[in-house]
Formats: sequence, structure tokens, C-alpha cells
Amino acid sequence: MDSPGGAAAEDQQEFAGRVKSFFESAPPLVDGENVSKKIAGFISRNRRASEEGRPSRVVCVTSGGTTVPLEQRCVRYIDNFSSGHRGATSTEYFVKAGYAVIFLHRRGAYQPYCRYLPEDSFLDFFEVTEGSAIRVCESHAKEVTRAIRDYRAAVDGGLLLKVPFTSIFEYLQILQIVAGSMKPLGSFGMFYLAAAVSDFYVPWESMAEHKIQSAGGPLDMRLAPVPKMLSLLRKEWAPMAFCISFKLETDSDILLKKADMALRKYGMHVVVANELSTRKKEVVVVTETGKVKVRTDEQHREVEEKLIDLLIEQHSHYIEESEKDAVNG
Amino acid sequence: MDSPGGAAAEDQQEFAGRVKSFFESAPPLVDGENVSKKIAGFISRNRRASEEGRPSRVVCVTSGGTTVPLEQRCVRYIDNFSSGHRGATSTEYFVKAGYAVIFLHRRGAYQPYCRYLPEDSFLDFFEVTEGSAIRVCESHAKEVTRAIRDYRAAVDGGLLLKVPFTSIFEYLQILQIVAGSMKPLGSFGMFYLAAAVSDFYVPWESMAEHKIQSAGGPLDMRLAPVPKMLSLLRKEWAPMAFCISFKLETDSDILLKKADMALRKYGMHVVVANELSTRKKEVVVVTETGKVKVRTDEQHREVEEKLIDLLIEQHSHYIEESEKDAVNG
Repeated sequence: MDSPGGAAAEDQQEFAGRVKSFFESAPPLVDGENVSKKIAGFISRNRRASEEGRPSRVVCVTSGGTTVPLEQRCVRYIDNFSSGHRGATSTEYFVKAGYAVIFLHRRGAYQPYCRYLPEDSFLDFFEVTEGSAIRVCESHAKEVTRAIRDYRAAVDGGLLLKVPFTSIFEYLQILQIVAGSMKPLGSFGMFYLAAAVSDFYVPWESMAEHKIQSAGGPLDMRLAPVPKMLSLLRKEWAPMAFCISFKLETDSDILLKKADMALRKYGMHVVVANELSTRKKEVVVVTETGKVKVRTDEQHREVEEKLIDLLIEQHSHYIEESEKDAVNG
Repeated sequence: MDSPGGAAAEDQQEFAGRVKSFFESAPPLVDGENVSKKIAGFISRNRRASEEGRPSRVVCVTSGGTTVPLEQRCVRYIDNFSSGHRGATSTEYFVKAGYAVIFLHRRGAYQPYCRYLPEDSFLDFFEVTEGSAIRVCESHAKEVTRAIRDYRAAVDGGLLLKVPFTSIFEYLQILQIVAGSMKPLGSFGMFYLAAAVSDFYVPWESMAEHKIQSAGGPLDMRLAPVPKMLSLLRKEWAPMAFCISFKLETDSDILLKKADMALRKYGMHVVVANELSTRKKEVVVVTETGKVKVRTDEQHREVEEKLIDLLIEQHSHYIEESEKDAVNG
């Protein structure tokens, strides 16, 4: 056990200080009250609607990259590459399995049920008939019809709430709100953290107020590390929720080592390890008890379909164990 | 006149060196041959289709922000804030006025004819009827029908070509291709440079090959200034084209001074000055002969409608003057 005056306690104190200064440095969340209300309403509707008096399962899927503003009146920012494809795809499979999904996504990233459609503009798959009616072009009829039908079913069935973010400040503020609302769900809550979260940021108060001028020579920048909020999520924000984080690397040599480290360091239940170049075909599910490779197969099932199946199984097991602990404890 | 050994010649040489090293450091354009072919085809079809044997007018509208990758296998990048709203809106008015438009836009930015529609997902404005047909929701029927009709008319009429980019490398490579194809149009060509182009970049060869690791302390970065290609566009790529650039600042005190400077330094015909906070209501059109303020009016005409009217007038005047010069010269 760590003694209160030991290195761990000091680390803890230093970490708490960094978290405090991150949130203090964040600009206030625009329309925060309304966002909180929508999230709380969605969760409580799903609790009430659940059968057998047991709370239904709710997953918060995060998706897309967060930005780090470099100027207060933001013109330039650092961004993390992430199309949001993984999060959008996974959301569809969670809904299919009966989970209520809070889809916390980067504005403009891929949306659930829109993944098969051309990227550029939805205007390309419609035409106007002579009678001025709108018709889906023959070439896209099947995909568009299915997308609209499945999307409407998810929203009308109360199983999908979309909440957008752009900056790292917005993302972490909203994640904290979601976690607070999900806390009462205990082990029935899940976090599926597929967003590409910035590692470095410029503290708001040290940020240039106006646009950085480019007349001079090279630009030198110093960025502070973003405190790793995963530990907070696990220890304080929603300690009973089942937590899955992602580890993306371009270098396969360090990927699994870093996934293992994340599992231990942040107390995740699962870390999904993926490499940038093969991420659509293969991921490795890393848990305390071992590593399972998940791949697309000959039936061309998406890697997310098999991944979500496996994670739901692990979540069910986690719920059972938690209930046993509650009875025995 | 500058002597060949003078400061200007040295500057010129230094500039040429920076341009060379920028393009050498750029990764090759993906599918570059196909992009070139599409652009050349679009321009020559419009030349052939023009009436009275005079080439019709073609404008290249650039729109949205460029990114600067920080890693070769790009996970993190610096981005420039720009929704692309100005470029998308202006494209509609240029098409309406009979210009053929090459819409060189950031992937995912606003698209022409899509501006009135909710940002999140087009799935929100359609529903599936009981007979499995797709129907526009009553609440969006008017906007969606108009958008699809106008868009189809522009594309089917051969007046709109959409070309996407993401990074500063792609953007400048494609801009050079477009300029080369537009050169034969002489003064009938126009560049309307509304894209938010990065001022700083990381030379490809000095870029980290793998993802930057975040385990350590703060991150220090040094970025090189992007050579200002506007001068090259004017002097070499398409010397006769009518060139309009944009100056966006958050600080109104320096805005007009910087617009004047851009006019002289890069030989622009027009610089449109706009301030971040008021840019949707007001711009200032800066030319050699003076400054004209353009504002939205009581009839709620968009600022772009009046701006494009004015610019087309100036373009007509420029064409006349150029033809007189050609006759007299």
C-alpha cells in the first residue's frame, strides 16, 4: 500500500492539479444546460422503458477526433485524424443488439447508417421528377432506403441520441456530464471510447487572443500534455461502468505493449488495439485474461460486427459478476 | 529597376528555393492524372460550348481549410478553421450568373446547394412510407426539393465540377493543375481564393514517420512558413486570370492594412477583407482604385450575392481592358 506521503500520493496530487487547471482553462460549454438535460432525459427514458425492472443497457460511443485550438478566436487548431467510421459502424451494431446509444461524435464525422453512401454530398443520390417530386436515383435506391429506414427506427425507438463536439474542451466536458448521468446505471452502463482524443493542448489563458501572424520566420509552439481522464472516468465519474478504450498506433512493434499498459494504468476492462493501416480488417481485444484477435471473415462480416458481439458477451459477464459481488458484499 | 545582383533578385532566388523545397517535400498527388484529366475536360467542354466564338468564363472557387500533417502516417495535423460556407454560397451565385465553376473544396466542408439544410445528417429529412418509398419530410420539403433541383441543373448543365482536397500539399498541387488548364482562357479565367490556406507546414522529410508519443512532457514543434504561392499564380501559372484573394483577421485594426499589403505584394486584382466575427454580414472589396463595403441589406440578400455581382462587373471591365491592350499592344 502506498503511504500518504509517498511518491504515488504526490503523483496523485500533481495529476489532480493538472486536471483542475485543464477544466479551469476550458471555455464554458455552449448550451451546457440543454446538453445535460437531453442526456439525462435519454438515460432516464431508457431506464423506465426497460423490462423486468432491470435497467436496460446504455453505451456511450465516442467517435471522431478532438481539436486543440491554437488561438482563442479560433482560426487555427491541431486536429486528430479520425473519420469516425469505427464509432458510426459500432453504433449500428449496438442498437441492433438492443443497447441505447449516446453517440458522442465530432461534428462532420461519419454518422451511423450513412456509411455506405458516397462521401461528397447527399444531393448526388436524388433527382427531381417532372412532377417536382423527389426520387432516389435507381443506382442508390437500396442503400438509401435501408439507411433511412434503420436510422428512423433507431431514433423513433429511443435507442439513439447524437451529441456533437469539436474541441478537446467540449469533448471532456460532455463526457463528464454523460458519465455523471450514467453513474446510476452501475454495471449496465458502458463506455466505448473510440474517439481520437488530443494528447496535447494549449491552455486557454496562454493562447494568442488574435490570429497568429505569419509574417516572420518559423513558428515555435509549446503544447502541454492533456491529463489522461480515463483514470478519472473509472475512479470517480462512473466507477461501475464497463470501460473499453482504443489504442491506435502506426508502429505494430509497440502497439500491444501500449495496449497492455493502458489496461493497467487506467483500469480499463478492455483495450481494443488497432494499427492504422489494418484497422478496418483486424483488431486485438486485450483484457486482463488475454488477447483475442478479431478479423473480418470470408462472409465479409465487418470487423465491428464481431467485435461488438464479443464485447457484449464480456459486458454480460461483467454484469453477472458485479451482481454476485453485490449479493456477497 | 532592380539590378540583377540586388536585394530583390536575392529575395527572388530565396523564394524560388522555398517553393522548390515545398513541392519536393510534398507526397505525390493521389490519382493526379485522373484529376488533371477531369479538370482539363471540364474547361475544354466549356470553351467549346461558349457562344460567339468567345471563350466562356470559368472561375476556380477554393473553399474550406487546408491541413498540415504533423506525422507522415498522418494521425495528427494542424487545421485552419473554415466551414467553407463562403465558397459554397459564392459558387451558387457564380453558376447563376453563367460562370462554369471548378469548386476546389476541403473534403467535408459545406457544399453548394446544401447550405440551408441541417448540418448533422441528411437522414433527418427523409422518411420511408408504408410502401417502402422514400419521402421528404414535410418540414424540409421546400428546401430539399430546391436544393436537389438546382444542384442537378448545375451539374447536368456542365457548370459545376467539384474537386476535393485535404492537406496543403494536395491543395497547392491541384491549384497549380487548375491554373495550368485555365491559362489558355486568358482574362476570361478567374480565381476566387476563399480557402483558408495554412501559413506554416512541416516539411515531409523532417516529419516523424510514426505517431508522436505522448508519454513525455510538453511537445515542442517548429513549423516552416509555407511560401506564398499567390505571386506564382499571378506571374507564372495563369498570368492573365483575374485574381481575387481573401484576407481574414480577428483584429479589425490590422485587417485593411493587411488587405492593402496583399494587393500590392501578390499583385491581386481584388482582395476581399473580412473580419471573423462579422464575416457573414459585411466584407470590404479592396482594389487599386479604392475600397467598397458590401453588406447584407434589408431585403436580406446574402452578402455573397452582392459581392459576386460586384466582382463580375469588375471582371467584365478587366476583360474589356485586356482586349483593348491586346488590340493596341
